[in-house]
Amino acid sequence: MALEYPHFLINFKTSTATVGEDGLAFARTIERVRDDTGCRFVVAPQLTDLRLVADRTSLPIVAQSATLADDAVMGATTYEAVAAAGADAVFINHPQNEATFADVARAVDRCDDLGLESIVCVTSHEQGRAALTFDPDCLLFERPDDIASESGLVRTHPERIAAFVNMVATQNPRTSVFVGGGIRTAEDVERAFSCGVDAAGAASAALEATDRAAWLQSVARAVLDASE
Amino acid sequence: MALEYPHFLINFKTSTATVGEDGLAFARTIERVRDDTGCRFVVAPQLTDLRLVADRTSLPIVAQSATLADDAVMGATTYEAVAAAGADAVFINHPQNEATFADVARAVDRCDDLGLESIVCVTSHEQGRAALTFDPDCLLFERPDDIASESGLVRTHPERIAAFVNMVATQNPRTSVFVGGGIRTAEDVERAFSCGVDAAGAASAALEATDRAAWLQSVARAVLDASE
Amino acid sequence: MALEYPHFLINFKTSTATVGEDGLAFARTIERVRDDTGCRFVVAPQLTDLRLVADRTSLPIVAQSATLADDAVMGATTYEAVAAAGADAVFINHPQNEATFADVARAVDRCDDLGLESIVCVTSHEQGRAALTFDPDCLLFERPDDIASESGLVRTHPERIAAFVNMVATQNPRTSVFVGGGIRTAEDVERAFSCGVDAAGAASAALEATDRAAWLQSVARAVLDASE
Amino acid sequence: MALEYPHFLINFKTSTATVGEDGLAFARTIERVRDDTGCRFVVAPQLTDLRLVADRTSLPIVAQSATLADDAVMGATTYEAVAAAGADAVFINHPQNEATFADVARAVDRCDDLGLESIVCVTSHEQGRAALTFDPDCLLFERPDDIASESGLVRTHPERIAAFVNMVATQNPRTSVFVGGGIRTAEDVERAFSCGVDAAGAASAALEATDRAAWLQSVARAVLDASE
Repeated sequence: MALEYPHFLINFKTSTATVGEDGLAFARTIERVRDDTGCRFVVAPQLTDLRLVADRTSLPIVAQSATLADDAVMGATTYEAVAAAGADAVFINHPQNEATFADVARAVDRCDDLGLESIVCVTSHEQGRAALTFDPDCLLFERPDDIASESGLVRTHPERIAAFVNMVATQNPRTSVFVGGGIRTAEDVERAFSCGVDAAGAASAALEATDRAAWLQSVARAVLDASE
Repeated sequence: MALEYPHFLINFKTSTATVGEDGLAFARTIERVRDDTGCRFVVAPQLTDLRLVADRTSLPIVAQSATLADDAVMGATTYEAVAAAGADAVFINHPQNEATFADVARAVDRCDDLGLESIVCVTSHEQGRAALTFDPDCLLFERPDDIASESGLVRTHPERIAAFVNMVATQNPRTSVFVGGGIRTAEDVERAFSCGVDAAGAASAALEATDRAAWLQSVARAVLDASE
Repeated sequence: MALEYPHFLINFKTSTATVGEDGLAFARTIERVRDDTGCRFVVAPQLTDLRLVADRTSLPIVAQSATLADDAVMGATTYEAVAAAGADAVFINHPQNEATFADVARAVDRCDDLGLESIVCVTSHEQGRAALTFDPDCLLFERPDDIASESGLVRTHPERIAAFVNMVATQNPRTSVFVGGGIRTAEDVERAFSCGVDAAGAASAALEATDRAAWLQSVARAVLDASE
Repeated sequence: MALEYPHFLINFKTSTATVGEDGLAFARTIERVRDDTGCRFVVAPQLTDLRLVADRTSLPIVAQSATLADDAVMGATTYEAVAAAGADAVFINHPQNEATFADVARAVDRCDDLGLESIVCVTSHEQGRAALTFDPDCLLFERPDDIASESGLVRTHPERIAAFVNMVATQNPRTSVFVGGGIRTAEDVERAFSCGVDAAGAASAALEATDRAAWLQSVARAVLDASE
């Protein structure tokens, strides 16, 4: 099922605080805020919990990673496996789990075959231009240094995000743009969407919020305001 | 929950034929043969299906792999995550997914903390001796070349398996010995148990059997005969 | 120093037969054939022998690999180190030592800064198009399965090599095209150059030739014939 | 050629400041201090400079890393290659370039075959005990967090180093003990040797010293005092 835009993604990463029932409870909180506000939310649960969250909520699901079946060894999770477990999309080449140059092209093709949305992560305009030659569904623009940081691009250099959006619009308008890294407040979310992105997301800020529901509601309002 | 011995383990590896519902159906076949024969079976499903198989069957479950929380990045599956999903044990340092020297020691400790049984994989007596200094619950002795092969140690050099069993019994009698690699027939299973091992297992032979239930029954009889 | 084209590259890989003095002797044989025939040869010695071959011969030198200084850990060989040792060019993303998607872009830039020629390896047209967005000096088109094989693309599908050459000529004419993988005879060399490539190379065929000088001479004649 | 003890090792790591001629100049400074003071020094130059330093100085040489020939791919440096380039010893499993569990055993054997001294790096007593079952020539005890730190074990917990020395003396007295990580001053060197170690070493402290010769002389005096 194709992801709809705009949306805000909550990434559970591999924190021990989002494992199993705790992850499901968090997903349910997100679902409730979605229902209350009308803002689209998407989640990236831990891989062992993918089916649990897919079965028990109606949230669209992004797999944090997947492995090409040809390269899969003991313990790997293939594109086929995440599709079967209920994923709608997959992160490819996340800065915290980089893919080889050859695998990015193959992964986009594999997603296409399996009806999964491909979200290719890049850390520079230069990489973005190269990745667009593979015709991905979405590009995530995120610098590794911004992850879990207070000084992400969205605060320090929003013009680079806007330039990235323009580059994608010119080169491959069907590809969506997602921005992550250093989004911690509703104000950051507004800044991100005012750069023209189709989606934004956070991990640590959401996980560490004292009142997660309140944090999600403020984010939801920012997304809705931006997309009016 | 500690694994009981003797048992025979079926490893689902990462085959696209054991994903999701197909994997569950296979697990149910295994469960049925266990109930019919009284032979203990253990399964190692794909990680995204771990909870599915744990919830819908009463088979003991081995996680194909896990990552130490300190090392976990996007898409990794921690020891905490496999424990929460229902695993009883974890393969550490499988020849198709090797661990660093430092991580083997840490992984055995982590299993101990979480109540998971630690199965450390080694490919030589020399490695076995070193791994025993970590006091693992079980050692899997398996050579990478034997995997999916017709000429595993169990056929060509059963005396090396017997010597491995003796070495473990002398050095750390509480550690169980599991043998894998090249076990394809009931006769191979008999050979393995007659070397004194506590457990044996297979992957490709089980998956590729024309009649899986019949193959499992023949294996079950071999295990039961050996343990009388 | 920029590599000149056409040329034929001999890759020493990591064979124990091309270490140290044996590698130097082989390089001297290559140098002699170059002087006798007038055919340009380039070598890729082992990294610990890079300076030895650079100091004692006048052959242009390609480093088999290099690591970005930011990523370098104990035992790594940086771009700065191979430049200092006498390399003229570097293989980036070789199929037997793949780079991440992000590193390919950075590596091309680093080569540019250090005056090294960048040779980016790709295994498909799709990857070639993406790599061209980084403006590399040369693209090596080589499939992993063709390495050390008797049935490389040059024999089975020369039209794919010709199509690759055309694609590069259209998209970025300043980038040279190098073909490798499965080139074993003078006839293969002719086939390669008749597809329009700027350079070709071999490793196992050269190393395993009973009479290396004779093999090199036959290759030299093929290169010279093709480039007349 | 076996390393002699006690000694102090200077590790050049992969800094761009110790590449090529700069590395050689540094090695010559070390050689001069050795000749002036009579303190044994050992160096670990960059791999591309191994032969340069081995040919132009009389310092014993440790290779920063090496790869088993069976695992070697493009750009790798085998044990055979470092031996041919003049190495006397090799670091195995350095915390900044970890080996798999299986490779540590194989690497110790390979060093033995090639007449190289094996220095296996461990980060805990537990790993040390396991590594001793492989009968290495030397164990380097170093915690990753201590590298380039002001608060290494030698300052904060010298008793753990002394306990490590005792453990090795009891279990395998022929194995030497080397301590690294956080050694920045002559006083640290004294502390290290007063724990009973056979060798100590530094990297960043030596590279960053304003007056490298003066720093080396102070270290030399500390080593000589400790070994009287």
